[in-house]
Amino acid sequence: MKKLRIALAQTNPTVGDLAGNAAGIVKLLSKAQRSGAELIVFGELAVCGYPPEDLLLKKSFLKDSYETVKKLAGQCADIPVIVGFAEPTNQGCCNSAAVLVDGKIAGVYRKVHLPNYGVFDEQRYFMPGDESTILQINGHDLAVTICEDIWANEYLSDLLSKTGPIQGLINLSASPFHAGKMSVRQKLLANRARQLAGPVCYVNLVGGQDEVVFDGGSMIVEASGKVLAAGRRFGEDLLVVDLALPEAADKKAPAVARVNRIVIQSPQPVSKPKMAAEPTAELNDLQEIYEALVLGTRDFVRKNGFSKVVLGLSGGIDSALVAVIAVEALGAENVTAVTMPSKYSSDETRSDAERMARNLGIKLITVGIQQVFDNYLQVLKDAYGEGPAGLENENLQARIRGNILMALSNRFGWLVLATGNKSETAVGYCTLYGDMVGGFAVIKDVFKTTVYKLAEYVNSKAEREVIPASTIERAPSAELRPDQKDEDSLPPYDLLDAILKLYVEEDKHLDEIVAEGLDVEATRQIIRLVDRNEFKRRQAAPGIKITPKAFGRDRRLPITNRYG
Amino acid sequence: MKKLRIALAQTNPTVGDLAGNAAGIVKLLSKAQRSGAELIVFGELAVCGYPPEDLLLKKSFLKDSYETVKKLAGQCADIPVIVGFAEPTNQGCCNSAAVLVDGKIAGVYRKVHLPNYGVFDEQRYFMPGDESTILQINGHDLAVTICEDIWANEYLSDLLSKTGPIQGLINLSASPFHAGKMSVRQKLLANRARQLAGPVCYVNLVGGQDEVVFDGGSMIVEASGKVLAAGRRFGEDLLVVDLALPEAADKKAPAVARVNRIVIQSPQPVSKPKMAAEPTAELNDLQEIYEALVLGTRDFVRKNGFSKVVLGLSGGIDSALVAVIAVEALGAENVTAVTMPSKYSSDETRSDAERMARNLGIKLITVGIQQVFDNYLQVLKDAYGEGPAGLENENLQARIRGNILMALSNRFGWLVLATGNKSETAVGYCTLYGDMVGGFAVIKDVFKTTVYKLAEYVNSKAEREVIPASTIERAPSAELRPDQKDEDSLPPYDLLDAILKLYVEEDKHLDEIVAEGLDVEATRQIIRLVDRNEFKRRQAAPGIKITPKAFGRDRRLPITNRYG
Repeated sequence: MKKLRIALAQTNPTVGDLAGNAAGIVKLLSKAQRSGAELIVFGELAVCGYPPEDLLLKKSFLKDSYETVKKLAGQCADIPVIVGFAEPTNQGCCNSAAVLVDGKIAGVYRKVHLPNYGVFDEQRYFMPGDESTILQINGHDLAVTICEDIWANEYLSDLLSKTGPIQGLINLSASPFHAGKMSVRQKLLANRARQLAGPVCYVNLVGGQDEVVFDGGSMIVEASGKVLAAGRRFGEDLLVVDLALPEAADKKAPAVARVNRIVIQSPQPVSKPKMAAEPTAELNDLQEIYEALVLGTRDFVRKNGFSKVVLGLSGGIDSALVAVIAVEALGAENVTAVTMPSKYSSDETRSDAERMARNLGIKLITVGIQQVFDNYLQVLKDAYGEGPAGLENENLQARIRGNILMALSNRFGWLVLATGNKSETAVGYCTLYGDMVGGFAVIKDVFKTTVYKLAEYVNSKAEREVIPASTIERAPSAELRPDQKDEDSLPPYDLLDAILKLYVEEDKHLDEIVAEGLDVEATRQIIRLVDRNEFKRRQAAPGIKITPKAFGRDRRLPITNRYG
Repeated sequence: MKKLRIALAQTNPTVGDLAGNAAGIVKLLSKAQRSGAELIVFGELAVCGYPPEDLLLKKSFLKDSYETVKKLAGQCADIPVIVGFAEPTNQGCCNSAAVLVDGKIAGVYRKVHLPNYGVFDEQRYFMPGDESTILQINGHDLAVTICEDIWANEYLSDLLSKTGPIQGLINLSASPFHAGKMSVRQKLLANRARQLAGPVCYVNLVGGQDEVVFDGGSMIVEASGKVLAAGRRFGEDLLVVDLALPEAADKKAPAVARVNRIVIQSPQPVSKPKMAAEPTAELNDLQEIYEALVLGTRDFVRKNGFSKVVLGLSGGIDSALVAVIAVEALGAENVTAVTMPSKYSSDETRSDAERMARNLGIKLITVGIQQVFDNYLQVLKDAYGEGPAGLENENLQARIRGNILMALSNRFGWLVLATGNKSETAVGYCTLYGDMVGGFAVIKDVFKTTVYKLAEYVNSKAEREVIPASTIERAPSAELRPDQKDEDSLPPYDLLDAILKLYVEEDKHLDEIVAEGLDVEATRQIIRLVDRNEFKRRQAAPGIKITPKAFGRDRRLPITNRYG
């Protein structure tokens, strides 16, 4: 049985940075060449970054994308390459894979199944392809597919009914992370490999892009369903594997309608020893969430031209966790924390904020807000008129803090990290233009109960108390009025998060949630709060998707909405 | 030639308010019955409101939508009705038109062409229908279609090739407004009427829903292409018309594959005199933009449960125009203005703000910001360190004003209206969490040059100087530092807006814009500013779409974007 040395190249492109992405491709290409690979495969839209969104409506962008691929072809003359790009065609734009051979674009496969759910809007941009592509390399027939194609149940059987047996499947993907997604992918790829009776070579992108993180983990799954080799999670990687493939029954396969066949005889003998391809250690849920948050933060900050960030450190657990993630992503020297006490701030939270900053080795600035707050109340006295103060003054304190963070951001060029979690973002237990300010909301998709688990994980990973036990153990409080506790306004977080998971992520109705045994009054309250606070979320900073359904592009509810 | 008395009912539904929308439908239904109509047609998704967005992912919503239609059927037993709703089917959700006859759902037409561009995401939610529906009423064959169906070139010819000649076309629409859209619609409908050699009965929705306004203007276009009758723009209406229709050649038309035929013999003779259906006066561009802004504001405020609004009145033209629109939409008694002078505020702008408030008869609150601003600088002194102050302090002033508006909003339950225009929103000449605060951004899609035209229109319509001439004539300034003028930072607005139109609305490249004769340096600067300020717009309040491409759902650019 002849072997094919295949390289799966997992790059971290930046949307729109065609030249930079091409440079990243060339870098891994050279490495693959040195390893003696006979075929190298990159991810979906690796040339453009994913998702390019409405850049795809610019004719100049499509033209530049095509020119970039043509230029790439010239740079990989002696090794066949498959790379994803946005292709301008007469019928419209396609999500395509270019097969580069001998310095030219030898053929193109156009994605057939265009996802248009969740975070995906591909039918807004792309025309579906209507042809299959078989790459016949050194006598092996490999089908080229792009992401969703292999998730569609009918695709592979349709293909096989046209082509007869093939020896393997190549899939270029841009598959965004959520906790647990990897095992879903593995299961699918194993099913396809068994269906095909041959290996599936799956290349994912890696890196953060606004709300999504691509988690890498490219892999080759054998006909048996076993993972033969897997690439890094959350980092660039090149996976080089010698694949045992039977030869195609008939090397001169007859032409089949709607199937393009690209025949390549690789000039390189498989001579040098293959690179090691150890299956990477599997990550548990907390590990992969943590890595996603770190990578998503690093990439958002850097790809947007920032190097330093600032955040409010309250002494509470949310901002503590965000500080840890920021330091891991960017280095302690690039993180500044600000503590902004008022008369409602307890000694405990203030000293916890100081301890956190010390533990992480980050600079801590103190700016008290009491004087400014009192001053606002004075100038607002007439406008407020009679009557006791309420929520307006709680929010005002949060907004003064927001102003201070933004003033420092504007003065020093630091990006502000918002520290709100998914539970409070869901129910609106946060102040618009207050604690919601920021260019990026790191833990926006992390439930409070998961925040606790991540805090424990951080400490156990560091084998020391990075996040003080007192921060973890203290009952959560916004500290905007005397003796305030989150649980005065909200159900306990374990109940709250259970309801939110069913309502927000699974679109369940009140009756269905109650039928699962959850409290009817709490559920009614939470549904009402989630629905009424869409206006706040619409003005929230983007944050990293780590669950099956995140606020943002993934969940599109009207603000004006009287249902329920 | 027998006549058919048809009623086109243009309702203003609220998304999700199934019971309320049904009540609005029943109200017009009764009116149509009294007028002797033999058939009454409502708009697309009139039962659910348009667009329901991710409510369509909730099974309970689809079930409730269906139940609402069943109930409606029972309430319109003695007149055939066609009404749009979201229909749960075994294959998924469809955008459907129910034909209600004799108290039952006699048949359903499912929209075939699902728009997935601009503000539309229909392929995210709906399965396309694959059948046509012919309503044979009193011997006339009318095809039922939904919105995009008739915009697709092939739809009608395909239909006619299956059915042979039909006598008319019914179209249920939810067509969002932009300036000039009406003439595009009229032209299309005239083409279809000529193609059909019969009348087209077009029913649009009316009302504001978050970022879009449906402008009504339902109409009947004759075979000649002439508009026979037209409904109100920007208001609910019932249009009752006696349509002259030839009878179908063969009343017992043979069954055709993929064509459903619903046969109705209307029990009501055409006896009572038909209601007047004067074609409404056509609105020019400024008139229709103004009406759209008024309706969009009124509906956003009221449908979200508010009655009163507050806005910052600076003495400049943007806030002056928003105040006028707010008063027209909600009444002077429901609008409060706040003037928030600093030491950079000129006497002229302060007195203009006062004059505006007097002219409109609205309450004006004055809250000076200087003292609070000075106080911030004092507490920020150490954190700022050495070096001259820059943008941070300009932004800080805007943010103090934002805080004051939000404090009043929180205290009194007033919705804050943001007053930024499209030109400054495009280039980021605005302060995030400062002048951008608000629940609704009324003129967000209005270019500054159009703001001037609307101001002149307001004064000429009122036949008095509602907006002071000095406000219109003064060079625009943010008044955040001494002698500041917008044109210190930006090209003149006529040039700026010309560039923005090409770049933002038409997705043109630098080279193409320059080829149209616009200044290369200015164009390069503006493109850079537009691209770099996506992060601000992503956190902006929703506003009313009045151009072919508005910021928001209509234009989806990544924040992280290195193209260009």
